[in-house]
Amino acid sequence: MPLSLPHIGALPTGARNNISDVAGVTVGHATLAGGDIQTGVTVVRPHARDPFVDKVPAACAVINGFGKSVGLVQVEELGVLETPIALTNTFAVGAVAQAQIRQAVAANPQIGRAWSTVNPLVFECNDGYLNDLQAFAVQDVHYDVAYAAAGETFEQGAVGAGRGMSSFGVKGGIGSASRVATLADGTQRTVGALVLSNFGVTENLTLAGRHVGSDLAKAIAAAAPEPEKGSIIMLLATDAPLDARQLRRLALRAGAGLARTGSVFGHGSGDIALAFSTAYTVPHQGTRAMPAIAMTHESHLDPLFQAAADSVEQAIVHALFHAEAVTGRDGHTRRALTDLL
Amino acid sequence: MPLSLPHIGALPTGARNNISDVAGVTVGHATLAGGDIQTGVTVVRPHARDPFVDKVPAACAVINGFGKSVGLVQVEELGVLETPIALTNTFAVGAVAQAQIRQAVAANPQIGRAWSTVNPLVFECNDGYLNDLQAFAVQDVHYDVAYAAAGETFEQGAVGAGRGMSSFGVKGGIGSASRVATLADGTQRTVGALVLSNFGVTENLTLAGRHVGSDLAKAIAAAAPEPEKGSIIMLLATDAPLDARQLRRLALRAGAGLARTGSVFGHGSGDIALAFSTAYTVPHQGTRAMPAIAMTHESHLDPLFQAAADSVEQAIVHALFHAEAVTGRDGHTRRALTDLL
Amino acid sequence: MPLSLPHIGALPTGARNNISDVAGVTVGHATLAGGDIQTGVTVVRPHARDPFVDKVPAACAVINGFGKSVGLVQVEELGVLETPIALTNTFAVGAVAQAQIRQAVAANPQIGRAWSTVNPLVFECNDGYLNDLQAFAVQDVHYDVAYAAAGETFEQGAVGAGRGMSSFGVKGGIGSASRVATLADGTQRTVGALVLSNFGVTENLTLAGRHVGSDLAKAIAAAAPEPEKGSIIMLLATDAPLDARQLRRLALRAGAGLARTGSVFGHGSGDIALAFSTAYTVPHQGTRAMPAIAMTHESHLDPLFQAAADSVEQAIVHALFHAEAVTGRDGHTRRALTDLL
Amino acid sequence: MPLSLPHIGALPTGARNNISDVAGVTVGHATLAGGDIQTGVTVVRPHARDPFVDKVPAACAVINGFGKSVGLVQVEELGVLETPIALTNTFAVGAVAQAQIRQAVAANPQIGRAWSTVNPLVFECNDGYLNDLQAFAVQDVHYDVAYAAAGETFEQGAVGAGRGMSSFGVKGGIGSASRVATLADGTQRTVGALVLSNFGVTENLTLAGRHVGSDLAKAIAAAAPEPEKGSIIMLLATDAPLDARQLRRLALRAGAGLARTGSVFGHGSGDIALAFSTAYTVPHQGTRAMPAIAMTHESHLDPLFQAAADSVEQAIVHALFHAEAVTGRDGHTRRALTDLL
Repeated sequence: MPLSLPHIGALPTGARNNISDVAGVTVGHATLAGGDIQTGVTVVRPHARDPFVDKVPAACAVINGFGKSVGLVQVEELGVLETPIALTNTFAVGAVAQAQIRQAVAANPQIGRAWSTVNPLVFECNDGYLNDLQAFAVQDVHYDVAYAAAGETFEQGAVGAGRGMSSFGVKGGIGSASRVATLADGTQRTVGALVLSNFGVTENLTLAGRHVGSDLAKAIAAAAPEPEKGSIIMLLATDAPLDARQLRRLALRAGAGLARTGSVFGHGSGDIALAFSTAYTVPHQGTRAMPAIAMTHESHLDPLFQAAADSVEQAIVHALFHAEAVTGRDGHTRRALTDLL
Repeated sequence: MPLSLPHIGALPTGARNNISDVAGVTVGHATLAGGDIQTGVTVVRPHARDPFVDKVPAACAVINGFGKSVGLVQVEELGVLETPIALTNTFAVGAVAQAQIRQAVAANPQIGRAWSTVNPLVFECNDGYLNDLQAFAVQDVHYDVAYAAAGETFEQGAVGAGRGMSSFGVKGGIGSASRVATLADGTQRTVGALVLSNFGVTENLTLAGRHVGSDLAKAIAAAAPEPEKGSIIMLLATDAPLDARQLRRLALRAGAGLARTGSVFGHGSGDIALAFSTAYTVPHQGTRAMPAIAMTHESHLDPLFQAAADSVEQAIVHALFHAEAVTGRDGHTRRALTDLL
Repeated sequence: MPLSLPHIGALPTGARNNISDVAGVTVGHATLAGGDIQTGVTVVRPHARDPFVDKVPAACAVINGFGKSVGLVQVEELGVLETPIALTNTFAVGAVAQAQIRQAVAANPQIGRAWSTVNPLVFECNDGYLNDLQAFAVQDVHYDVAYAAAGETFEQGAVGAGRGMSSFGVKGGIGSASRVATLADGTQRTVGALVLSNFGVTENLTLAGRHVGSDLAKAIAAAAPEPEKGSIIMLLATDAPLDARQLRRLALRAGAGLARTGSVFGHGSGDIALAFSTAYTVPHQGTRAMPAIAMTHESHLDPLFQAAADSVEQAIVHALFHAEAVTGRDGHTRRALTDLL
Repeated sequence: MPLSLPHIGALPTGARNNISDVAGVTVGHATLAGGDIQTGVTVVRPHARDPFVDKVPAACAVINGFGKSVGLVQVEELGVLETPIALTNTFAVGAVAQAQIRQAVAANPQIGRAWSTVNPLVFECNDGYLNDLQAFAVQDVHYDVAYAAAGETFEQGAVGAGRGMSSFGVKGGIGSASRVATLADGTQRTVGALVLSNFGVTENLTLAGRHVGSDLAKAIAAAAPEPEKGSIIMLLATDAPLDARQLRRLALRAGAGLARTGSVFGHGSGDIALAFSTAYTVPHQGTRAMPAIAMTHESHLDPLFQAAADSVEQAIVHALFHAEAVTGRDGHTRRALTDLL
C-alpha cells in the first residue's frame, strides 16, 4: 500500500500543527547548503521578549547522554532557560553559544559585569555524513539570521539545523507538530513539539505502528546496517502552567513517542528532550515580583503526557515526510523517504 | 482477525523464553487467591548463592517515580543488590522487606551487629481493584514460600505478585521473556525480562504495533476510561558483563519496550526498571578479592539495548496472554484479554 | 579549656531554637529503653492537618545513599510528602511504614480503593551497637505513640529514634535547631533542622571549627578507629515559599553543615537530607484549587542556604550535648560527650 | 597571630603536594595579563597519550549547577573523558571547546567522519570583576599554549584560568594539593586536587577551622557584602582503580572540603567537581580489548574520601596563599590574602 502521512494518536492538532500553536513560540532557520557544506542553525524563541530578562520555566530529560549539547546543567539547577533555544551541528556548538552570549550582552550590557553571566542553550546532532563538520562552516552570523527569521510559519525537513541530518538511513531533519489536550477540569492546553531528527536504524522504522523498516532497507539496498550514530533533540512547548519538576516529567514523555518510531535509545544516539512552559515567566532581577500562579494539578497531567508523546512521534514523522533528498560531503546522498516507500 | 501471540522484534529467544534463560536466575511465586484476597509475592533470585555474601551488580531506572518500591536508593549508590528481588502489592512492602531482613540475618547473624545492615529490595504495584489491600494479607511466610519455590520454570499471568494486577482494563500480572543478542565481536549474550504488569489505559493497548485498544474498549464495554493508576515493574537480567553505569543504561531501555505497548508513562503509573548482571559478583567483605573482569565495550551495547526493549515488550504481552480472569474484592472482575479479542 | 555549647554562625535563632520555630511543625518521640533494647521512633508533623489531604512540598538530597530510608523515590517525582515524617532504626522501617499506611487509611478509607495508595516516608539509622536490632522491637504502636506526643517542645539526645544512636564514638541521637534569615527584600524566614545523628569518626570531630577529635579519642581511650558505619538523617523545615526544585537545593546545603563537623560523607554513612516548606500545601484531589503563590526569587536564597547549613551543624552539636550515656545490647556503652571533654 | 599556611587534615602529602603526584597527570597554563584583560586557560592532561584513543574513567558531581561548563552530560552517561580537561572564563568556553575539537580532529582525522564526534570538556568560572569578559580575549591558540606547557610542576594562584578569579573578596585562582591514603589492605593510593577558586563570601572564610572572615572583612574595609557570584571547579585525580560510579562518589566529597572553607554552596556559585582515575583506560575502538582490572572494594573507599576532602580544602588554601594582587578591568583590584592577614 502507498505510504501516506499518518496522524498519530487520537488527540486533535492545533491550528498549524506545529510548535507555534503554543502562542508566542516562533521558529527560524539559517540553512547552509552547497557542496560539502550541508548544515545550519535553527532557533526557537519561547516568547517575543528577551528571555534573559523574562526567563522561561524549563527542564530537560536526558534519555541518552551521548551528546554535546550545552546549557543543560544550569537549566536542571535553576529550572529556567534564559536565551532562545538553538539547534545546530556538533562542531558548531561553540560558535553558536558565543553568538547567544553576544546577543544577550548586546541587549543587557551588565551581563558579565555588574550582573552574572548568561547560560547559552545549544543542542546538536552530528550531520557529518552529509556535511563537512571539520570545515566549521557555522558562524555567529548564522545564529543571528535564524533568530531574525523566527516566525509562526517555518519550513520543515532539510532546513536549518536539519539540513544535513539523517534518520533511519534516509533524509531527516526538522519536524514539528502539536496536539490540543483537554484536562479533567475541561481546560484546553496545547503541547507543541519540534525535533531535530538524526537517529534511527533503517530496519527499525515504524510509522504509526506499522513496521516499514524492512521494506525501507530493501528500497535503500543498503550495505550492512549502520550502528546508531545519530541523535535526536526533542523540544516541547506548552501553555499549561507547569513548574520545572513537572516540565521534567513532560520532557521524559518525549521518549515514549520516540520509542514508538523504532528507537531503543541506541548507545550512539544522544536522545535529549527539553520542555518549557509559556504560561508565566521568572524575572531576572529579584527586585521584580515573582509570578503568583496556580500550577496544573498533578492528576491532570495525563492528557499533556499523551500530547507530548504523540506530538513528538508526529514531529519525527513530519521530519521524514518533509525532508527532500540531499547530496553533500564527498558525494554522500540521503534519499527522501517519500521517494522510497 | 483472531488474536495470536505475537513475537516481538527480530531477535531469537532463549530456550525457555523467560528470564531464567539467563543462567542461574530462578523465579518463585506465593499466590493468595480467595474472595477479597487476590494478591501474592514473586521472588527473583539472581543466582543460587547468598546475594548478601556475593552481591550482584545492578542499577535502576526510575521512569516514573510514583511508586513505593524500596531499596533503590542504595542500589543507585552502591551499584549492587544484596537480597533476592521481591515483588508484591503496595501495602505489603513493609512485611516483605522484614522477611528479607530476617532471611539475611538468619544466614548472616552478624548483620546488624558486627556487620552493617542489609538492604531489602521490594517492588510493588497497586492491586487494590481486585485485592483488599487494607487486609494486609501478605505475611513473612509468603516471601519464604515464594523463595523456596524458585526455579527455572514458573507460571505467568495471575500468579504470585501478579495475582491481583490489571493492565489495560483486563487482567495483567507476571510476564517473562528473553532474547539472545549477538554482539559486534560475535559474542552471544542473553537478556531476560520479568514484569509485574499493572499499567495501561484500555484505549491505548498496542500489540506488536497493532493498535487494538479501541476494539478492546468496545469488548469491555467499559464505562468512562479510567485514569492511569497502575504501575509496572520491569526486571532485566543479563549474562553480559556490565558495570552499574551500563546496567542503568540497560534498565532505561525497558522504557522503550513499555512505550511500544501504548504507555506514555502515565502520571499515576510507577514505572520502574532494574537491571542486573550475572557475569560476576562483588564480595561483601573487603578481605576477599574483587573480580578482575573486562566489561562490555560501550559500542557493543546496542544489541543488548534492543534485546532489553524487545524482551520487556514481549514480557508484557506474555502477562496479558497468560492471565486468566479473576474475580476479587467486592466482586470486582478483570477479564482475560484472550477471552475478549 | 572546658567545653561549652557553641553557637554556630552569625544568624539569630528562632524562639525555641528548634525545628518547631517553623510555625506548625511539631515533634514527638516514642522511646524504648531497657536492657538490650535501646531504640525508638520520632515523628515530625509538618502541620496540624492530614498531610495526605493537604500535601507538603518537599524534596530530598541523597548525599550518600548507603541507607534504607523509604519514600524518597515518590518525593523526588511528585515534590510532596503525604504522611508525617518518621525516623527509626534500620530494621524497623517496614513496621513503621505499615503504621503510616494504617494511619492514612484510617483517616481516608478510600486509600487503596477508589483512590490511589499512600507513600510512607520513613528514615532510618543503624543503632545496632547499643540496640538489639534483630529483636525487631519497634511495633506499629510506637509510631502512634510518637505521633500522639508531637508538640512544639520535645526532648533531644538519647530519645525517640535517637535512643540507640552514636556519633563520633560517643552518644548521639536527636538534635534540633533553628535560624532566622533576612532576605534581600527584608523578609524574615525561619529555617529549622532536626537530625538523627549516628555518624562520625571520633578523630574527626570538629565543634564550631575547633578540632576536638584527637582529644576525644584519647578520652575514650578507644581501640582502633572504627570505620564509618553510621548515617545521619537531616530534616529541614522552612516557612519560605519554595517549590520542590528549590527545596532540593536547600536540602543539599545540609551537607555543608554536616561537613563542618568533620564528616567526609563516609562510605558506610547514609547521609540523607529532606527539606519541606510550610508556606503552602498541595491538595490531594484535583477538584480542589491549587495554591497561587509567589515562590522566593532564586537570588534571595543565600540567607536560607546559610540558615540550613548553620542549623544542621547546630542540630548535630545539640544532639551531642543533649545525649546522655546509654548502656545497651550486650553491655555496650556509649558515653556522653559532655562527660568526656 | 600571623597567618601561616596550614596543613589540612592528618594525611601525608605526595612528593609535590599537587595533582601531578598522581603519576602521569600534568598541568599547563596560558595567562593573559594586561590592562582590562586578566584571564587565561589551564589544561590538565590525565595521561601523556591521546585521551580520545585511550579514554579516562571519570564522573562529575554537580553540587550547584549554576554554571556553564560543557561536556558533563556525556561524562555522566559514558563514564569517561576523552579530551584533556580545560579551565577558562565563562565567555571563553565556546572558543576553548572548539580548540579541543580541532586538536582531537588533528590527531584523529576520522572524528566527525567515519567515527563519531568528540566531547569537549571545558569548565569555567566568571572572572568578570577583574577581566573584561566581553572582549572575548581567549582564543584557540591559548588552549594550545596551555596544553604545550603541561608538566608536573606548574604555578598556582593568579595564573592560567585563575588569572582573573576572586575568592572571599581577595585574589583567588588556581590551587593544587595531594594526599596519600593508606587503604585497609595496606595499599597506598594518591589523590590529587586542582581547583579554580572563584567563590566565597569574605565574612565566611575559614582556614583550617579558624574563622578569619570577620578579620578579613575588616582588613578589606569592604563596602556591603557581595552576594555569591563566583563558582569553583574542583578536579580530583587518583591512581586508585575506581569505576565511574565510584568516581562520582569521590567527586562529591570535594564538597566536604569546600564546605570547611566557609562555603554553603551559594546560589550564584557553580560548584562542580570531576574525578578521574589513572589506573586504567578504556579504548575508543570496540575492536581493542577492554581492561580486566579489579576495582577498589567499596569498604576501602573512606581513606580516599578523606583524601579528596582534605586535598580540595588544601588546594583552596593554596590558591589563596599563592595568588598575588591583580588590578584589571576598569581599575578593579583584588588584593592578596597574605597582604591582609
